[in-house]
Amino acid sequence: MKVGFIGMGRMGQGMARRVLDAGNDLVVYNRTPSKAEDLRAAGANVVDSIAAVTQDRDAVITMVTDDAAIEAIALGEGGLITTLPDGGIHLAMGTHSVAMTRTIAASHSEANQVFVAAPVLGRPDRAAAGELGIMPAGPADAVARLQPLLEVMGRRIFPAGDQPEAAAAIKIAHNFVLGCAIEVMGEGMSLVRKYGVEPLVLHQVLTEGIFGCPAYQIYGDIIVNEAYDNVGFTTLIGLKDANLALAAAEAAQVPLPSVNVWRDRLLGAIAHGDGERDWAVVAREQARASGLE
Amino acid sequence: MKVGFIGMGRMGQGMARRVLDAGNDLVVYNRTPSKAEDLRAAGANVVDSIAAVTQDRDAVITMVTDDAAIEAIALGEGGLITTLPDGGIHLAMGTHSVAMTRTIAASHSEANQVFVAAPVLGRPDRAAAGELGIMPAGPADAVARLQPLLEVMGRRIFPAGDQPEAAAAIKIAHNFVLGCAIEVMGEGMSLVRKYGVEPLVLHQVLTEGIFGCPAYQIYGDIIVNEAYDNVGFTTLIGLKDANLALAAAEAAQVPLPSVNVWRDRLLGAIAHGDGERDWAVVAREQARASGLE
Amino acid sequence: MKVGFIGMGRMGQGMARRVLDAGNDLVVYNRTPSKAEDLRAAGANVVDSIAAVTQDRDAVITMVTDDAAIEAIALGEGGLITTLPDGGIHLAMGTHSVAMTRTIAASHSEANQVFVAAPVLGRPDRAAAGELGIMPAGPADAVARLQPLLEVMGRRIFPAGDQPEAAAAIKIAHNFVLGCAIEVMGEGMSLVRKYGVEPLVLHQVLTEGIFGCPAYQIYGDIIVNEAYDNVGFTTLIGLKDANLALAAAEAAQVPLPSVNVWRDRLLGAIAHGDGERDWAVVAREQARASGLE
Amino acid sequence: MKVGFIGMGRMGQGMARRVLDAGNDLVVYNRTPSKAEDLRAAGANVVDSIAAVTQDRDAVITMVTDDAAIEAIALGEGGLITTLPDGGIHLAMGTHSVAMTRTIAASHSEANQVFVAAPVLGRPDRAAAGELGIMPAGPADAVARLQPLLEVMGRRIFPAGDQPEAAAAIKIAHNFVLGCAIEVMGEGMSLVRKYGVEPLVLHQVLTEGIFGCPAYQIYGDIIVNEAYDNVGFTTLIGLKDANLALAAAEAAQVPLPSVNVWRDRLLGAIAHGDGERDWAVVAREQARASGLE
Repeated sequence: MKVGFIGMGRMGQGMARRVLDAGNDLVVYNRTPSKAEDLRAAGANVVDSIAAVTQDRDAVITMVTDDAAIEAIALGEGGLITTLPDGGIHLAMGTHSVAMTRTIAASHSEANQVFVAAPVLGRPDRAAAGELGIMPAGPADAVARLQPLLEVMGRRIFPAGDQPEAAAAIKIAHNFVLGCAIEVMGEGMSLVRKYGVEPLVLHQVLTEGIFGCPAYQIYGDIIVNEAYDNVGFTTLIGLKDANLALAAAEAAQVPLPSVNVWRDRLLGAIAHGDGERDWAVVAREQARASGLE
Repeated sequence: MKVGFIGMGRMGQGMARRVLDAGNDLVVYNRTPSKAEDLRAAGANVVDSIAAVTQDRDAVITMVTDDAAIEAIALGEGGLITTLPDGGIHLAMGTHSVAMTRTIAASHSEANQVFVAAPVLGRPDRAAAGELGIMPAGPADAVARLQPLLEVMGRRIFPAGDQPEAAAAIKIAHNFVLGCAIEVMGEGMSLVRKYGVEPLVLHQVLTEGIFGCPAYQIYGDIIVNEAYDNVGFTTLIGLKDANLALAAAEAAQVPLPSVNVWRDRLLGAIAHGDGERDWAVVAREQARASGLE
Repeated sequence: MKVGFIGMGRMGQGMARRVLDAGNDLVVYNRTPSKAEDLRAAGANVVDSIAAVTQDRDAVITMVTDDAAIEAIALGEGGLITTLPDGGIHLAMGTHSVAMTRTIAASHSEANQVFVAAPVLGRPDRAAAGELGIMPAGPADAVARLQPLLEVMGRRIFPAGDQPEAAAAIKIAHNFVLGCAIEVMGEGMSLVRKYGVEPLVLHQVLTEGIFGCPAYQIYGDIIVNEAYDNVGFTTLIGLKDANLALAAAEAAQVPLPSVNVWRDRLLGAIAHGDGERDWAVVAREQARASGLE
Repeated sequence: MKVGFIGMGRMGQGMARRVLDAGNDLVVYNRTPSKAEDLRAAGANVVDSIAAVTQDRDAVITMVTDDAAIEAIALGEGGLITTLPDGGIHLAMGTHSVAMTRTIAASHSEANQVFVAAPVLGRPDRAAAGELGIMPAGPADAVARLQPLLEVMGRRIFPAGDQPEAAAAIKIAHNFVLGCAIEVMGEGMSLVRKYGVEPLVLHQVLTEGIFGCPAYQIYGDIIVNEAYDNVGFTTLIGLKDANLALAAAEAAQVPLPSVNVWRDRLLGAIAHGDGERDWAVVAREQARASGLE
C-alpha cells in the first residue's frame, strides 16, 4: 500500500517502521524533521508538508499525542481536510477525545473523505515489535482495506464498529480501568501498611492469585518499590486521561464515581509536587492522605 | 498431626477432607451434624461439642462465615477459650474483622493459648483441590508447626507476620481490590454501551491485554452476559466485605474513597432488589445510574 | 409531673434543671453522683440506682452520650426494662443509632412499657435556657402526655411520628447535613485561597447572601480563624455521627455519597493528629489534600 | 458616567435599567436588538455593533451567559479588544471560567485596556431591584472609579482584590457551595423518607434551626414540593457550574470531592431526562439511587 505517516513520537516511529518493513511505500511527515531520520535511512520518503504526505496515498496515518495536535493536522490551514483527495482515508491512531473524534469524522465526511479511528494499546517497545492492541472503528469497507496495515502494527485487532468515536470511548475506558486499578491498589497498600504488613506481601497475594496480569504486576512493583521516578506515564498524563474519561462520560450522561476518586488523587499528587512522576504515585498520595508520609 | 475442625460449610468440608486425606488424625464438629457425614464416612471422628473437638489436639481449625460465628465458638460458653488446653493452637481460617481478630487473639493470649489467623483465597473448588492461597499470621513457632497442615490445604502460603490482625487486613484488602475492580469494569461497560459498543468488546480489549487474569476474565464474563443469577458471592456478602474494609480502615485511620464508591453501588443494587444476586451486579446498578436500564 | 432523669452531662444538667424549675417532682440518677450536686441543692432527689429512679414516676428521661450507655441503662442488669412499671414511659433524648433505638423500642414494648425517642438540637447553653429543638417520636398518646415536659426544655417541638427510630433518623440527617456543609465550605475555602483570596471574603459572600444562618456563620468563622482548638464538637464525635448516618442509611438502603466524602476528611484529619480538635478542622484536612499546609 | 452595556438577558436588562435610572448616559448593544426595546423606551441609546457601544464610554459592561459569548464579544472580530480605546474599561459581570477570565484580562492588558471582573449573586428580581451581591476584582483605581456604578446595581460589594480571576473563583465557589448543599439536603430527605418521615419535617428541623437561610429555605421547599418544573436554574446550568468548579480547581490543584458527588447526581438526573428541570432535582436523582422512585 501507499501510506502516509504523520507523527514521529516514540510510538509513531516504531509503528511507521513496521509499515515500511512490511514492504509498503511510505511517505513520512513530522513537524521536527530530525525525528524522521531513522526512517529516511530505512527507505521512507520524508516530506516537509501535510500536502506532500497526502499525495497519491491509499491512507494517511496520524499518531499524535493530543487533541490540539490532531486538530491542527486535520482541521488547520493546509491540513488533511483540505489536502486529502476525494475518498482518501485518514487513519487516526492516537488517543483523542470523543468530541474531537466526532468533529474530525464529521469534517472528513463533509469533504468526501474517510475517517477511521484506531487507537492503540501498548508502550513503544510493543509498537516496535508490531504487538500493539488496535481498536479500529469507521466505515466497514475502509476498515477492511486497512486490515493488512493494522495487522502489521498489531498483535490483536478489536473491531469497534463503524462509529470512530466508539473506538475513542473504548480506549478511554481501558485507560481509566487501569488508572482506577492503580488507585485501588494504593488504597490496599496504605491499609496493610498501617497493620505492619510489607506492601510486597499484598502485591504477592494479588498477583499470584486472581490478579496475575501485567496491570497489577507492573504497577504493583512500582508501588512496592516506590519507583516513581522511573516514569512510564506521568501523573499529568494520567490527569489528561481522567479528563478524557469525564468528558466522554458527560457527553454520554454517565456518572463515573471511581474516576472521580482517581482524578482527585492525581490532582492531590500534582499539588504535592508529583506531577512529573509516574502516575502510580497516586499510591503515595493515598498514603499521604492516611498520615503515612 | 491431631487436628480438630469446626465449620462444615462448603469451604470447610473441602479443607477438612484435604487434612484427613493427608493422613492426619481428624476430629470434626459442626452445629448441624449432618454436614459432617461425608467426612465421617471418609474416616473422621465427628463429635458433638467444642469441648470434644479440642481434646488432645495439636491444633483446632475454625472455618466459619462471620464475626458472630467465630465469637460464639471462641468466646461463648463452652467455647475454645475455656476448652483448649494450655498452649493449644486455634487456627482461624475464616474472614473476620480486624477488631474481632484482635479480641480473640487477646483472649487466647490471656488464657495461655496460641492464636493464628490464616484467612484463605479461593472458592470451594479450590479448597477441595488443596489450591487455596493462605495468609497465616501469628507467633512464628506456631506458624512453623502448622506449615505442613497449611501446605495440604494451600497451593501458596503468604507469611503475614506475627500479628493475627495483619492477616485479616490483607484478606480484607484483597477483597476490596476485587470489589472495586468489578465496580470500575462496570463503569467502563456503561460508558462504552452509551457509544454503541458491545460490552464484550471492552471485555476482550481488557483481558487480552494487560488485564489477562481471572479477576477480570471471570467477572467481565458475568457482566457481559448479565449472568447475575448464577451467584458466586452475593451483593449482601459484598456489602459485608465493604464494611469490614471500612471498619479496618477506620481503626487504622485510612480513608478508602474507592471502597466508598463500591459500597454505594452495592447499597444501590440492594435497594433495587439485587441483594441476593451475584455481587458483579454493581455493573447493572452503574448502568441504572446512567439511565441505561 | 413525677419525672426521673438519668444522665448528668452538660446537656442533661441543663435540661433536668428546666424540668425541676417548672415545678415538676424530679428524681435524678447519675453514675457519678457528684455531677448531680447542683440539682440536689436546687431541690431534686438524687438516688443511687436505676431501680430507685424509676419508682413512682410518670416518665424517666435518659440523656446519655452513646449507644453503649443507653444499652447499659435500658437493657443491662437492673436496667429500665426490668425496673420500669407496666405502662411506664422511657423518654430517650440522646442521639442514638437507628438500630439501638429499634432494639430498645422493641424491648420496652415486650415489657409492656412505652418508649419515646426525642433527640434534641442545640448546645448546652440552649439546653439551660430551655431553647432546644426537640423531635419526639413514639406512641401518640405518650407523646401528648409528655408535651408539657418537652415544652419546658424546648423552644420548638417537631413531631416525628409514632416510630421512635424515625426521630433518630431525623437527628442523624440533621447532623450530616451540618457536617457536609462544613466540608463543602472547606472545599470552597481551599479553592479561593489558591487564587489569593482571603477566606474571610468567601465567608462574607456566603453569609451576607443566601447562607446567612448560624451553620455557615459559626463554622465559617472557625475555619476563617483556624480556631480549631476552641472545641465545640470534636472530629472524633463527627466520625461517630458519620458512622451513625452510614449505619442508618445501610439499614434503609440509601447511598450517601456526600457523607462518605465528609467521613473520609474526618478520618484524614484524625490520621493527621486532629482527632480532638473541633470538627471544622476538616477544612484544614481539605487544605492539606490541596498541598496548602 | 458614560456607560456601554452588552447583554440584554433577564439579568442584563435589570442591571442596565438601574444604571440608566441612576442618571448615567447609557448605550446598549444586544445581538437580538428587540430585547433592548424597553431600555430604548426608557432613554437608552441602542446601537448595532460592539464598535458603536464602546465609543466615548467610561466603561463597557458585559453581562453574558457563558465563556463562548464573552470570548466572541471580547476577542472576536470587531470585539472589545479591537474597539475599546486606550485605557478603556471592560467590566465583565457574567460568570466565566477562571481560564477565560485570565485570557481576557491578559488580552486587555496587552491592548492597554483595563479589565475588571465583577460577577454577581442574585436572580433577575434582585438585579431589577439593584440588590445584587457584586464581587469586583481588577486594578484598584479602576474598581474605585466603578464603585458608584456597582452601588447602583448591588446591595453589597465584596472587593476581591486586583486579580480578575479571583472574583471568578469566588463566584464559582459560591455556586458549588450551593449546589452541594442541595445535594446534601437531598441525601437527608431520602434517608428520612425511608424511615417514614415526611420531607417537610426535616425541612422544618433544618430551617427553623441553624439552617434558617434562603439557600435551605428556597431549595428545601422545592424538594419537599417536588416543584422541579418551576425552574430557576436548570440541571444543565448546574452541570456547567460544576464543570467551572472542577476546571478552576484543576488549574489550582485542588481536589473537590463534594463537587464530584454533586456533579455525578446532576449527570444522573440528566441521564434520566431531568436536564431542563430545576437543578434541585438532584434530590430526586438521589431518591432514585435509593430505590425510592
